[in-house]
Formats: sequence, structure tokens, C-alpha cells
Amino acid sequence: MTDKALVIFTPSGKRGRFDKGTPVLTAARQLGVDLDSVCGGRGICSKCQVSPGYGSFPKHGVTVSDDALSAWNAVEARYDEKRGLKKGRRLGCQATIEGDVVIDVPPESQVHKQVVRKAADARQITMNPATRLYYVEVQEPDMHDPSGDLQRLRDALRRDWEIEGLDAPLSVLTRLQPALREGKWAVTVALWKDHEAERHQLIDIWPGFFEGRLFGLAIDLGSTTIAAHLCDLRNGQVIASAGVMNPQIRFGEDLMSRVSYAMMNPGGDAEMTQAVRDAMAGLATGLAEEADIPARQIVEATVVCNPVMHHLLLGIDPVELGQAPFALATSDAVSGMASDVGLATINSAARAYLLPCIAGHVGADCAAVALSEEPYKSEDLVLICDVGTNAEILLGNKDKVLACSSPTGPAFEGAQISSGQRAAPGAIERVEIDPETKIPRFRVIGSGIWSDEDGFEAAIATTGVTGICGSGIIEAVAEMRMAGIVDASGLIGSAAQTGTPRAIPKGRTHAYVIHDGTADGGPKITVTQGDIRAIQLAKSALYAGARLLMDELRTDSVDSVVLAGAFGAHISPKHAMVLGMIPDCALDKVTSAGNAAGTGARIALCDIDARAKIEAEVHRIHKVETAIEPRFQEHFVAANAIPHATAPFARLRAAAPLPDVSFNTGGAEDGGRRRRRRG
Amino acid sequence: MTDKALVIFTPSGKRGRFDKGTPVLTAARQLGVDLDSVCGGRGICSKCQVSPGYGSFPKHGVTVSDDALSAWNAVEARYDEKRGLKKGRRLGCQATIEGDVVIDVPPESQVHKQVVRKAADARQITMNPATRLYYVEVQEPDMHDPSGDLQRLRDALRRDWEIEGLDAPLSVLTRLQPALREGKWAVTVALWKDHEAERHQLIDIWPGFFEGRLFGLAIDLGSTTIAAHLCDLRNGQVIASAGVMNPQIRFGEDLMSRVSYAMMNPGGDAEMTQAVRDAMAGLATGLAEEADIPARQIVEATVVCNPVMHHLLLGIDPVELGQAPFALATSDAVSGMASDVGLATINSAARAYLLPCIAGHVGADCAAVALSEEPYKSEDLVLICDVGTNAEILLGNKDKVLACSSPTGPAFEGAQISSGQRAAPGAIERVEIDPETKIPRFRVIGSGIWSDEDGFEAAIATTGVTGICGSGIIEAVAEMRMAGIVDASGLIGSAAQTGTPRAIPKGRTHAYVIHDGTADGGPKITVTQGDIRAIQLAKSALYAGARLLMDELRTDSVDSVVLAGAFGAHISPKHAMVLGMIPDCALDKVTSAGNAAGTGARIALCDIDARAKIEAEVHRIHKVETAIEPRFQEHFVAANAIPHATAPFARLRAAAPLPDVSFNTGGAEDGGRRRRRRG
Repeated sequence: MTDKALVIFTPSGKRGRFDKGTPVLTAARQLGVDLDSVCGGRGICSKCQVSPGYGSFPKHGVTVSDDALSAWNAVEARYDEKRGLKKGRRLGCQATIEGDVVIDVPPESQVHKQVVRKAADARQITMNPATRLYYVEVQEPDMHDPSGDLQRLRDALRRDWEIEGLDAPLSVLTRLQPALREGKWAVTVALWKDHEAERHQLIDIWPGFFEGRLFGLAIDLGSTTIAAHLCDLRNGQVIASAGVMNPQIRFGEDLMSRVSYAMMNPGGDAEMTQAVRDAMAGLATGLAEEADIPARQIVEATVVCNPVMHHLLLGIDPVELGQAPFALATSDAVSGMASDVGLATINSAARAYLLPCIAGHVGADCAAVALSEEPYKSEDLVLICDVGTNAEILLGNKDKVLACSSPTGPAFEGAQISSGQRAAPGAIERVEIDPETKIPRFRVIGSGIWSDEDGFEAAIATTGVTGICGSGIIEAVAEMRMAGIVDASGLIGSAAQTGTPRAIPKGRTHAYVIHDGTADGGPKITVTQGDIRAIQLAKSALYAGARLLMDELRTDSVDSVVLAGAFGAHISPKHAMVLGMIPDCALDKVTSAGNAAGTGARIALCDIDARAKIEAEVHRIHKVETAIEPRFQEHFVAANAIPHATAPFARLRAAAPLPDVSFNTGGAEDGGRRRRRRG
Repeated sequence: MTDKALVIFTPSGKRGRFDKGTPVLTAARQLGVDLDSVCGGRGICSKCQVSPGYGSFPKHGVTVSDDALSAWNAVEARYDEKRGLKKGRRLGCQATIEGDVVIDVPPESQVHKQVVRKAADARQITMNPATRLYYVEVQEPDMHDPSGDLQRLRDALRRDWEIEGLDAPLSVLTRLQPALREGKWAVTVALWKDHEAERHQLIDIWPGFFEGRLFGLAIDLGSTTIAAHLCDLRNGQVIASAGVMNPQIRFGEDLMSRVSYAMMNPGGDAEMTQAVRDAMAGLATGLAEEADIPARQIVEATVVCNPVMHHLLLGIDPVELGQAPFALATSDAVSGMASDVGLATINSAARAYLLPCIAGHVGADCAAVALSEEPYKSEDLVLICDVGTNAEILLGNKDKVLACSSPTGPAFEGAQISSGQRAAPGAIERVEIDPETKIPRFRVIGSGIWSDEDGFEAAIATTGVTGICGSGIIEAVAEMRMAGIVDASGLIGSAAQTGTPRAIPKGRTHAYVIHDGTADGGPKITVTQGDIRAIQLAKSALYAGARLLMDELRTDSVDSVVLAGAFGAHISPKHAMVLGMIPDCALDKVTSAGNAAGTGARIALCDIDARAKIEAEVHRIHKVETAIEPRFQEHFVAANAIPHATAPFARLRAAAPLPDVSFNTGGAEDGGRRRRRRG
């Protein structure tokens, strides 16, 4: 028999022979097994917990005796007493190998643990954050070897963690000496790793072993709303989320208005920069308070946004993005100090990472959607629409991916809709209209009960019915079309034409009453002719963008559609198709990705390799410019009808035949005027 | 005959054969000849001027015909018309090779030109600054190739200048787009090169070809005074210099008082940091105004200082430097944004570089002295004393160099001296005392005339005689000793004992009147017993430090002595030796290096390779700690006499025999007390 013992790690299957007395952690490191440790094997952090297996393992051809590992030692006993060690667990840095053994590394002990992105999604995020904690014991200073404390910290990090190239910002360097002395030459440091260079930056330092966790912010900076997720950097868990309106709205609802504001008002870009930075800082502070964590432990932020927001956040005048050739100041990912983009309330040395832009109109938000949905890995030809004030559209598969941006306007987000509002409790999010009686039923956010069901009044007692959100207006318009209240041109019929008193006159057009709460002092929620027109403009823009990409790939159909966006998860595929928002596709192939841009931000936050990946992928994504493409205008005009004539919609017609009605009375309504002029 | 022409460059002697029609600049680059160009060969910058030689060159074995270079072209004619081209000069990027030719590259056309450091010094600085200008023509943006402006600037720099790894701080990135458009896609950029990594940082950008020059600041941050030199980064020339008192003096005259202030007053270190940063920013602004240059064109600063000033400038609490083991927070060179150390009035992206420290008591100022004086290249055993509030002392030769710091106090700088003042017009800087009559003569700064010469009154009419500076007090005390007015113990005799009415009673001791201006409303300038004691303490500390290093090298003598320091150039070697400031040495081997620390700062400013060199050398300099070394105290006590007994001073005794007087009357004077207690 050999003096060395066979060690097999699961689930990796990595195996090797080691001298008896070798700590499990040492063996794992030598074999490249993914076993975590923050304290470097000093029995402090307990991150290296393993589960030894005993008995017979025919699969591995080994039988493990009860004394294959060293006996439970004092460090383990103390740890168990203080904090409790799960049954069967050992500390990998304490237990030594004494015989052939099979050792399981549970998921929580893996450095690069896989975490499920969200319940409905099989894809996973690999935890590999840029910023991690390291515990080190630093050589004390010696008058006869007069190196600085920083140099000895570097030596310790090189020795224990093989870390080279450590930069220390002044703001952290000033805290180094007190921390080393308070910790009696043991400190825990948070180090950020630059994925572009073999270089680390000191983010923070704590005396002794720091028990706390590190957090990051994934920020989706939209034209209309700013959403942020506070994530635990050990397991990727979102521990708090919050959103606010983008305060730049006061300078202009849409991006081009803001670019105009910057052009017309000297210093206008700086005003907008300050506004968005303040809002982001406020969000960060609020999230730390909500999660009850010290803001100092928020050490990183990733930001996704469209190019105009990207420039305004960085303090770059976006004027060039308002005119051809739409040149970005910089298209690469931007990595810098979070405080440089106004995130001054989190850790003072925290880093910020803005994903790369694809082009002048296709921003880091689109790159984030690509990172989340990975069209470049798809076998299917997949169309991904990230619906917001601008739609980011990706079309492609593993061979080629195209991208464009389309100015849908804020209608899909409930803005510029007469009864519109943000998706919040009280907002109508689902609508059904009986095609016979033309009577609607609806559901509001915060209540699972339909308006014609028992208990509805009680369920909405606190919120009331306050308005209609983006997904609600889409369903309402599609249902109105299916119930014959709206014709293919988008005109709402009169009560006589539609046979329902809910079709009421409004100026020279008509409106349809979804809910009348005036008796109780609430609002009357209607869909007006103006609302229909706003939705028509928005859906035409979205469709025209998708269609332009399809032309570019010389295809008339796509295999699958992914609807993404802050409210993308709430859009009903059937209603989207009835409206003609998206090209024809089997309904079961239309899925929702939720806030894919936000998910992309979260992936980039949790996995440093994802940053390198998307930085490489954006160069392979072919951008199509909608703003100067005459076919975009053609598609846009042709897509005005509900649904429109340019798509066959064979599957849709089979699933939901639409009534053949026409309410054009030759009257003063705009659609009628337009048609007359053309005729 | 071959189709290729032979080209020989002088002074390098590099030669090669080139196709006819090859521009001279291209040939130079291919041969690695040091020929400058900012515009990249576009006939704009005229930095590539060369002097072709015609006729017979037997040494090179070549005869150059008149048509060896292409004829004078339109670009050269235009340049000559606009700005004038020296006779015989050609633009290297315009003139093409048409036959065998010898081409001289004049010094001003060399990138790494050698510049004489100062008139009296044969050593040279190689011009190789970290920050340089580059002219580039950038590809215009194209909607179908949607890279950012920064990416296309990077491409152009890679193509024309082989520059990789360009970082752009946000503050410069915001100016990129307007500059590119204003310059019609041609810009001049200032790039800083990191000597530690193959990495550049964008410092500034100007539309088109920028005619201006770049400047740097070499700052000598002393405990008592802050001196700064504004240098032209093309030729190293100092175009303006200025100095101010270090405003930290109000927190403590010497370094240990300031460390105490930081320890006793919460936030005291931050107060001192702010004070010194403000003073430096003020100096920078003042220098730009004095030289009438835009502060934006000051793109770099190098700083040398002792460890306490180093920490206070960086915002690091210096408390650890006040107690053994005197641990530095960081000993390596510090490279960062100038604005991070308060230099916010120069270019907003300017860089600052602090030379490395050698140890907790031996700072970047000592490293700068080493860089300037290069003891590590010396064949002689050289002792270098940089005299200030602390003395930085280096001893060694090419085999080994030792360093220490000694707390001389501010007496050598004229502080804590009864009539002391900074070296400024009106200050007495030279003193002679007639050994027979005991009558002094002196010279004041700003006047070349001795006080007993004709025209003296007129020469000092504007300044008056205001006090005595560091070099003046050293000479005064030494002359008093040589004239028998002071005895070997440092006691001033009475009028009766010395035979001069200029020895006047002052309290229980005596003082010697150098100059009495009271009749004209001016001051009476005397050397008091207290002044002598202060000088004794200072010179004992300096001598003890030097002696400690000599002990360490087991030597009793040195081959040469270099006196450095802001006022080092003004110390008379003979008087220094009479005082016993420095060990015995042939008088002609005692030289002055002037402000060697400041010169070191200037070398590091002008030559990036010098930074790498001193960063390597400091690790080879062996530091000796005076503060805990009992022998230092012994040497210090033994060095109190004038001159003292521990040095043989054979050469001095031969040159200037000292009178054997003793004024100890057993009275109440401190020297007498001390001696009694010992007896």
C-alpha cells in the first residue's frame, strides 16, 4: 500500500494522491477544485466546509473508512459551538487526509457557485464577482527592513492569494495603518479585480476577520424610470429592489427632447447629469436603508442604459447622438470609480462598470439584453424586443445577431395615455372584453381577483382603481379590437356602431369606458381615440424595427419572440400579436424575459467573466440604423393598422379571428382625414 | 550601382540603405534614430528638422552630391515663410532620399535630447518626459461602423504612434467630441505614459495642431519651505521658480511637533494636509502667472519631501512616523492624479509623482538627492549632506550606499536664531571677522559689495540689513570661533575676555554685535549665546548622523563631501569644517550641490527612466535608523565642541589654527552648568 491517500472531490470528480496529514483545502487547491476560503485556511471564515463521504463508493472504486479524515479538532469544535456546523460537515482547512476519501463540496462552499437567475428560468449566473474579501496576516514592520505597510500587505496577498498588481486609492490608503494595528496585523481586505488587466484595486479594509458581506448594485437606467437591485455578492441574491422616475423627465419626456435641451441650453447637459446622478445616489442610499446594511459594504455598481443616458451619466454632452452619424464619445465598456458617476453614498472606493454600447442608438441596455438572453448562442432565429421608451431589438442566432433601436415613445410605459400610470398597485394590468356584451372585466396590480369576481371590492379597498398601466393598455386596445369596438384602422366606433353604451362621445371622437369609479370619488378610466393612436405609433415603431432586422436577414418569419423590458413580463403574447406589435409566431414560442436589461446588469455584477464576454460579443453584433433607413419609415407607415397587412398573421387569424368592422364615417377624426388625403 | 541609397545619421552613426524617395523621417524611424516628430510626418510641427551634409565624408567613406535629397518643397517653403527655417535645415518628413547622404540630427530635433542640468555641473538630464504631445488624424465616424470617437482616437494612436492601452479620464473624455469636430478630425493630444505599465493616459486634447508647449512642476516640499520650479517639458529649462513658507509651521516648527499636533488634535492631520495642499496650489498658480502660461498646460508635477510631509500631503495621518518602528503607510513611489493631492489649479487631468521613500525617517527627498548626486555610481567614498530642518545624509560609493536622517532643527535655515531670517534680500549671508580687531564685515543677499567697501550703503538702500540667514549664521559662528570670541565649548566671552566692545552682555551671557542699524531705525543684529547653542545642536546632529554612517562602513574618513540643501550652495566649506558640521576632508573635495532634492525632482520630471531608476536604487540603499541607535547619541554629545574632539581635523588645523581660549567662568551659563554636573 502506498503512503499517499487517494482523494476524490465531488461533484467535480477531480482526484489525486496526497501525503497523509495534508489539509483538505490544500488538496483541493492543488487539484484546482473550486473550494472557497476567505481566511486562507486559518479556521476563521468557515467558507471551506466540505462533506466527507464514508463507506463504499463503487462508482469511484474506493471504500472510505471512518478515520479517513483526522478527528474533529478544537477549531472545528469552537466554530460549531459559536455558530453551528451542519451535521456531517468539516472545515476543509482543519480536517487532514488520513486515508482514501471522497469529499463533496456543497454548492455554498464553491467559489464560483451557480445560482439560478430567476424561478422561471433554467439559466444560471456563475458567481464570480470582481470584488471579493481576502483575509491576510501581514508581516509587522521592522526598523531594519523599512518597507511600507502597503508593501507588506502586497507581500501577504502575493504569498497567500497569489495576487499581483495591487493599487490603493488614497482614500483607502489613509485607513491602512489604523486597521493593521487594530487587527494586530491581521486584516480583511476587499479587492476589486480588473478583468482587462491582471490588476487589483484595494476597495476597503477591516481589522481582523471581517464577518460582513459585500453587496453590489445592478442599475437599469432608463429614460423614464431608474431601477436598481441590491445584490449579495456571495450568492447573487437580490436583497432589495427599488425604482424611481428618471428626474430628467422634467427636461424632456423622450431622449431626443433631452438632447435638444442640451443643445438649446448652455450647461443643460450638466444639469441633466447632476439630476440623474443625484437620483442614483438616492436610490443607493434608500436600498441600503431598506436592506438594513451599511452603505460602505456596497462596493460595486453595474449600469445599463441607452446611449443618451450613458453620455449624460458620464457627463458627456449627448449632442452628437442627436444627429447623424450618431457618434458615441466612447463605445467600449466604461470602468471607473463609482463616485465619478455620482454614486458617492456607497463605499468611497466602490467601482462602477457601464456595459459597452453597440452603437450610437443601440446602447449598453441592448448589450445587457444580449448578455441576459444570449441570442448569439441560439439555434432558433430569435427576436428579442426590450420594450421601453425606446425599444431595443435583437434578431439572430448563433451565426449572426443584428440589433437596432426604435423610438416607441413612452406609451407602452403608460405615459401619454389619458388614464395611464406606472405599473403600481391600483393600476389596471389585465383586461378582457366580452365580444357579445362588450362588457369589460379587469384586474389591478396588488389584487389577484378579477373585477367581476366576488371579493374584488374588498381586495382593492386600500388601493382603489387608479389608472391603467402599460400591459393594461395593450390588452385593452387588443380586446377592443377583438370585441369589434375598434376597427382595423384604429377608430373607436360610436355606441350605435358598436352596440355598447360604454362607447361614449369624447370631442369629435369616441372613448371606451373600462371602469367608472366617479360614484365613489374615483376616476373614470377610459381608452380614448388618442390612446389608441399613441399605442398605434408605439407598436408600429416596434414592429418596423423588428421588420427592418428581418429584411436584413432576408427572412419573413422568426422562430421565437422574447418580450423583455421592465414591464415585458406582463405583456400577454396574444394581445401583443393582435395589436401587431410583434411579427407572426407560434403563440407558445412567445415568451417574456422580464427586465432582461436589468438581468444583464445583474449578470455583469455577479460574474466578471460575463463582462469580458459581452465586451467581445458587442463587436460581433451587427447594428442596423433605423433613423436613416427609408425602409424603416415604410414599415412604420404600413404597420399602422390593427393588425397590419404586411404580416401574414396566419397563426393569429386561426387563434383569434378579428371582426371585420369599419367605423370610418368620413368625419373629422384624424385617421379618417389621413385616409381621405391618400385616397 | 544599387538602386538604394546609403543614409548615415550623425551623431548616432546609424546607417542603412533605403529606396530612393524614402522620407528622411521614415529612414530615421526604421533605423531607430532619435529624430523627433509631433505631427507624425505631416509637415506641421517642424520638430524633425535635420541638417544634410554635402561633399566628401572620408570618415564615412561617402561623397554626397548636391541632389542627394529631394528639392525644397512647398511645405518647407511655406514653413520657412511663416516661421523661418535655419539655413541648411530641412524638414525630415518632407525631404526624401535621392542619393547617398550624411544627415545630422541637431540636438533640438532629438526626442531624448540631453540638457545640461546647471552651469557648474557636467552631468546632464536626458529629456524623456512622461507626458508628450501627439498629433493625430482620426477616422471620421461612420454610421455603418459604429465605434466611438475614443476608439477611433485609439486606433489612430496605435497606427501612427504605436501607442497601446489608452485610458481617458471622464474629465478629458467630455472634451473629446467637440475637439475632434473643431479640428476637423485632427487633434493634438497630451498623453502621459506610465513607466510601470505599458499604459497611457489622455491628459488633454486640442483641436488641430497645438502650437503650445507642455510644462511640469518640480516641487521640493520641505518642512520649513516649499519650493517649486516650473519646467518646459521639451527642453527641461526652468522658466520660473518660487518658494513659500510651509504653512504647516503654525502647527509645529519641526516634524515631530506636527506629528504631535496630529496625535493631540482630532482632525489635526487633515488640517495640515489642507494647509500644505493649498500652499502648493497657490505656488502653481503663481508660477503660471509669473511665466505667463496657461495653467492648463502644466500637465505634471513631481514632489520630493520627507516622510512626514509625504504622508501629510497624501492625507495619511503621520502618527506611525512618530514612534518606533517608524512604519510608512507606503514606501513605494506614488503616482496619481495631481488633483488628488490638491494641485487642482493646473490641468484637470495632470499627474503627480512622489518619489519613493527609503524608510520611515528617510524620505523621497533623500531619494531625490540620491537621484541627483548618484552616490551609487561614485568611485570615491562620498558623503552627501542635504541640510534642512532635517538633514538627509547619504554615504557610499558604487559598492554600497547608506542613508540616514538626522533632526538638525531649523537653525541652519535661520529659524530659532535671534536675528535669523530666510535667505532673502537684506539677509546677511557672508561674514568675516578680523582676528586682530574683532571687527566684522559682511555681505547681504542682493548686494555683491562687502559692508566695509565703498558703495555698500547705496547697494543696500532698498533692502536694508534685515537679519541673518542660514549660511550667514554658520559663517558668523565659525568666524567668532576663529577670532577667539567663542571658545571651543561654544561660550561667547565678555568684552574684557575678548577685547572687543562688540561682545555685549545679554542676560547672564554675552552676545556679539554684527551690525547695529538702530541709528537708522534698523535692527541690531547680534549672535547670542542661544544662537550658538542652536547651531551647536544642529551641527552636532548633522555630524553625528554622518559619523554613524561612517561607523557602519567602518571608516574614519571620506573622500569627498557634498553639501546640498536649499541653502547648501551657500555654505562655505571652510566654515562648515571649522564648526565641525562635517567630517574632516580635503577642502577642495567639499563641494556644494545646491538644492539636490529639487534637482532630483526636476530629473524625475524630465526623465521617465529616472523614475524607474530611483525606484530600483532605493531598494539597494541601506537605511540606518538614528532615532534608536545609542551610538548616535554618543556621537551627538561628543560633537558639541567647536570643533569637536572625535575628528582629527588634521587638514583643518593646518589651514586654520584655532585660538586656544576658554571663557568658562563657572557662572550660570548653561554650558558651564552642564560641564559642572559632569565634573
